[in-house]
Amino acid sequence: MRCIGFAIMTLFLGCNQPNGDISEDKFQKLFDGELTIIDLTHSLSTKSPFWPNSSNQNSFSYTPISTHPSGAAAMGSYSTGEHNGTHLDAPIHFKDSVASVDEIPPSDLFAPAAVIDVSAKCSTNSDYRLTVEDIKEWEDRNGTLPKGVVVLMYTGWSKKWDDPEAYRNQDEFGKMHFPGFSVEANQFLVNERAIKGIGIDNLSIDYGLSTSFDAHGVTNGAGKYHLENVANLHLLPQKGAYLISAPIKIEGGSGGQVRIFALIP
Amino acid sequence: MRCIGFAIMTLFLGCNQPNGDISEDKFQKLFDGELTIIDLTHSLSTKSPFWPNSSNQNSFSYTPISTHPSGAAAMGSYSTGEHNGTHLDAPIHFKDSVASVDEIPPSDLFAPAAVIDVSAKCSTNSDYRLTVEDIKEWEDRNGTLPKGVVVLMYTGWSKKWDDPEAYRNQDEFGKMHFPGFSVEANQFLVNERAIKGIGIDNLSIDYGLSTSFDAHGVTNGAGKYHLENVANLHLLPQKGAYLISAPIKIEGGSGGQVRIFALIP
Repeated sequence: MRCIGFAIMTLFLGCNQPNGDISEDKFQKLFDGELTIIDLTHSLSTKSPFWPNSSNQNSFSYTPISTHPSGAAAMGSYSTGEHNGTHLDAPIHFKDSVASVDEIPPSDLFAPAAVIDVSAKCSTNSDYRLTVEDIKEWEDRNGTLPKGVVVLMYTGWSKKWDDPEAYRNQDEFGKMHFPGFSVEANQFLVNERAIKGIGIDNLSIDYGLSTSFDAHGVTNGAGKYHLENVANLHLLPQKGAYLISAPIKIEGGSGGQVRIFALIP
Repeated sequence: MRCIGFAIMTLFLGCNQPNGDISEDKFQKLFDGELTIIDLTHSLSTKSPFWPNSSNQNSFSYTPISTHPSGAAAMGSYSTGEHNGTHLDAPIHFKDSVASVDEIPPSDLFAPAAVIDVSAKCSTNSDYRLTVEDIKEWEDRNGTLPKGVVVLMYTGWSKKWDDPEAYRNQDEFGKMHFPGFSVEANQFLVNERAIKGIGIDNLSIDYGLSTSFDAHGVTNGAGKYHLENVANLHLLPQKGAYLISAPIKIEGGSGGQVRIFALIP
């Protein structure tokens, strides 16, 4: 009996310690459709809020090539800015001669996620910028940011997606007001932590008032990617989700539309 | 000693039986960058072979919005057919009032892969069509196609990607010659097996001579998706790889560019 007890104890220790409960093969569950998958991608349409510029090169347009009796497209073509809709900024977006969107190693596109919820602060200050203190408060609750993480800033902006005017939030001078990362926060993330990228649920990881996009320069400049116009962050836990970010593979592209799936084991 | 031996044996049996070797937590390895990921996506460029039509609505064009000193784009816009490059056909491509590309459930985009290599037959017959017999021969070697599989036909065409003329293989009358699925094979797959989709490493799951696209009608008509212009199938095992297919999320789109990652545990 002692021997069987020892064997059972060994079995428990052996199976549970390294990888959690043996009954949860997360990989198999993912491919059996039994793992929760949250789509962090907004659908792209002619109504999607795009970055305003004089020539409208950033907006989405769609041309049906053939249609069904219902009027639905059976085939079509489209045009869009690379940095429109839910999209990824490749490092080359803000630094010359570094990785374009097709050159990001696939393994960098699989990452644990940390969600920093500053939506309460952003609800009273549209110009809010994420601070180093916000990151440290997340770490006080959840431990040090894990290696290879993608840090997602939840501002609450995604809920305005269907109202482009509220999403851009332009003032009487045309200046946009939405929150973003601060330069200091991005410096902390690239110098003091081992991140793969960052993301946000609005038009830009720099706040709306920025004209020099200094936060972009820090993270893209360090070879990290950005996810912008991310959807559904309110459905993720602060810690414990995993991201698969799959950008369109444009040769030499500075970025492009990205499909983002969050897995919640 | 006998007791320790028993404990060790128990440990091996207990850990190996349900889910494979405990030392291989495939999910964790995937997000730690330790699992082999093969990118099944061709880079999209103005040189990519597109489906020929009179108005060239299917081809890819790129317009820089701003450029770096090296000449590399820092930002750009593009236009393309939905069904250009490595792309996904949503069910609505060939049937009215069914799922558009944005409506495919994410869990359907995670699937085990079966690769049926008919490249030898296709090398001597550009008009080859996959037969039910080819599928059954795969099953004789690998067992019944697993539930939820994506069946990938490897014709060898992907190696011609950089030579659009060879890839399209048009004859003196302009008719294209490349292999595809037969109607009978697709009927077998949708009626006798539980597939999520099919894929091929050339321009169309119907062979090049087709003008009625009957194989499309069978699989899209049954709510299954197609992956076309798939790259790197020669790097996959016949059985045992897993696919993540992440299409651009165009609202109401009939399909679109897809990033496909194959995981090989």
